Amino acid sequence: MANAQPFSFEASFSSSVPPARPRAAIRRGKYDFAVAYADPPSVPLDGLLDSLASAFQDEGKDLAVYPHPQGYPPLREYIAGKLQRDRDMRVGPDDIMVGGGSGEPIGLLIETLIDPGDVVLTENWVYGGTLNTLRRFRADVRGVECDDDGFVPDALESALQKAVGEGKRPKFIYAIPTFQNPQGWTMTLERRQEVVRLSQEYGVPILEDDCYADLRFEGEDVTSLHALDDTGRVMYVASFSKIIAPGVRMGYMAAPPEVLSRAQSVKQGGGANQLAALTVHRYATSGLEDHIGDLKNILRTKRDAMLAALGENFGSAATWSRPEGGMYIWGRLPEGADLVSVQQKVMDDADVGYHTGVQYSPDGVSGKNYFRLCFGYNTPEEIHEGVAKFAEVLDGEGMLRG
Amino acid sequence: MANAQPFSFEASFSSSVPPARPRAAIRRGKYDFAVAYADPPSVPLDGLLDSLASAFQDEGKDLAVYPHPQGYPPLREYIAGKLQRDRDMRVGPDDIMVGGGSGEPIGLLIETLIDPGDVVLTENWVYGGTLNTLRRFRADVRGVECDDDGFVPDALESALQKAVGEGKRPKFIYAIPTFQNPQGWTMTLERRQEVVRLSQEYGVPILEDDCYADLRFEGEDVTSLHALDDTGRVMYVASFSKIIAPGVRMGYMAAPPEVLSRAQSVKQGGGANQLAALTVHRYATSGLEDHIGDLKNILRTKRDAMLAALGENFGSAATWSRPEGGMYIWGRLPEGADLVSVQQKVMDDADVGYHTGVQYSPDGVSGKNYFRLCFGYNTPEEIHEGVAKFAEVLDGEGMLRG
Repeated sequence: MANAQPFSFEASFSSSVPPARPRAAIRRGKYDFAVAYADPPSVPLDGLLDSLASAFQDEGKDLAVYPHPQGYPPLREYIAGKLQRDRDMRVGPDDIMVGGGSGEPIGLLIETLIDPGDVVLTENWVYGGTLNTLRRFRADVRGVECDDDGFVPDALESALQKAVGEGKRPKFIYAIPTFQNPQGWTMTLERRQEVVRLSQEYGVPILEDDCYADLRFEGEDVTSLHALDDTGRVMYVASFSKIIAPGVRMGYMAAPPEVLSRAQSVKQGGGANQLAALTVHRYATSGLEDHIGDLKNILRTKRDAMLAALGENFGSAATWSRPEGGMYIWGRLPEGADLVSVQQKVMDDADVGYHTGVQYSPDGVSGKNYFRLCFGYNTPEEIHEGVAKFAEVLDGEGMLRG
Repeated sequence: MANAQPFSFEASFSSSVPPARPRAAIRRGKYDFAVAYADPPSVPLDGLLDSLASAFQDEGKDLAVYPHPQGYPPLREYIAGKLQRDRDMRVGPDDIMVGGGSGEPIGLLIETLIDPGDVVLTENWVYGGTLNTLRRFRADVRGVECDDDGFVPDALESALQKAVGEGKRPKFIYAIPTFQNPQGWTMTLERRQEVVRLSQEYGVPILEDDCYADLRFEGEDVTSLHALDDTGRVMYVASFSKIIAPGVRMGYMAAPPEVLSRAQSVKQGGGANQLAALTVHRYATSGLEDHIGDLKNILRTKRDAMLAALGENFGSAATWSRPEGGMYIWGRLPEGADLVSVQQKVMDDADVGYHTGVQYSPDGVSGKNYFRLCFGYNTPEEIHEGVAKFAEVLDGEGMLRG
């Protein structure tokens, strides 16, 4: 049209929206140790299909109406019961809101609470998805020293004091206390008690991300941070992604009513997907417990395969964690090794995907000599092959001669 | 704990988050003309279940991995083909992003584009869900006069000139040109051409909400605004909620790559629900066309029932629309009638739910004498009963003596 004004969306975007994300440069490898995928052969397809059929028989016609804004009530009832039973939490269905995996609930809580510049304390290496969302809302993210028992209490207290001293009381402490992502450790009961005590003493709430608690294949459960607090300041997030499948996109938060109400007001798209909620609910109340038992055996075998392969191929050139559950091994090469610069080469030459520490670093810069390997997806045989190939490329780059 | 600092989340919320939403005060009525629900008996449960079974057989194991951030590629391919075929749009699968109903895509576009104070032009009465999201992002929403052919071009041009004159070029024009919600009219081709011409002349993009285009049971299709623009400034949103069921929570946007990329960066919870996407894709490529044919017959019968019931019970005391598709009738009582004040009484005494014009008013205040009735949910018999009961209560309140 002759008199059309030139127009560009580029000049029109909201000032609060981050620049366009570059597309992920690295493809998926055959040996996909990068992303936390589930074990494909054990996805309970028959159970899920039977569950949906049963739900359709009971109440399928209700798909004609919009889902409850907090999510399907019977699923919330199941979740509340599970959290009471497994995590010692005093919650009911009205304290729960269902969402897309754990990512949406975490995102809603961050959006609900964070103004630009707000301080959030996290573990020293921590889940990159949460870091990205915190950055998007321009939080001042501060990593706190951890050891294999969790937050180092003195370091946490110093970080709290420092922030309060700057007039920036942290908005919350973000913690993944069980099978920490990426580090794999589980915070001890004593440390959890300390964290809750400091939270109370400094008037700073906690966001507990507990996505892996069901996947303990060794050792004893440690209760949730949420259960150790009696003042209503712990927000809790978990998911069915790791115990059913990521594709069902079902997770949830438990939080005080005023937080749930705000989170609901910023949630887009209405109540959580009802088709998935019906499926997950019927499956959770029938086959899920047995399935989790199977998954633990599978994951233990895979962890053992990866630990063995690391021992055979990395020897003393690296150190790595030995998790009692979850799906991650966290490794470290000597200072100076740069696992970022070889990431594409490892994919090209060995068909191996992995994450580096940079993706888990609150400062977004350090961690080049760290790697996270996920043992959830490949078979034990593939894990052996892939770790050997990974080591071979690193060795060729002179990175295993520490 | 003795030294716990008192803590309240109330003081912690982000300054950008609106106050807590009051819970909906009014329950659902037996005669539920309020919300745009689908026809429960015709929800294609068997077809959906067979579709999921077939998808599981082909690629169920892929539930173990995370969905594509733009949504399941074969579903996007289907959507692009459908938009080419039905709405004359030149789009491919990469131009599409799938989300939760149309609400999430609309919300993501608003979040992507709106800063507080930005002007958005809308129809004079318009979908309350979009209004609520625009208000949440503090847009300056300005309703533009419409008649039964759509936007009045002079009024739209005046609104554009006024905003530009204030140094506030509108961020976009939001339009529901087909079976407008709540007014029910369809914008004519000539008016659409005018709207696109004004959009180009004033350098203001369009957000076209086309959720009802598939539901034409009378008259001739009118092409989309998107098809009439060749400059890439029309964003387009639609949904499977009205042609399959709201509970599947599947909708989509078509937008330029730079917009999709930003929308993706603000979407929470990752790619759209894969379980629902697999189901909808297989169903869309098998039974959906026939199903839409059935739905049109059902909706025509229900519309006719509602028009007849309105004629019998409201006579000359009200005026109302006669839509050729979609699921809404838009009615008007004489100036001074207050349908807000009697909403609870109508629910209590007649078990009838309806919306008032206030819920569709850009200024959030006017419209007390307007009502929207949705004829999608109840049976024709129930529609007759419910409209009669509705009129009876209004008559008892002296509101039908115009």
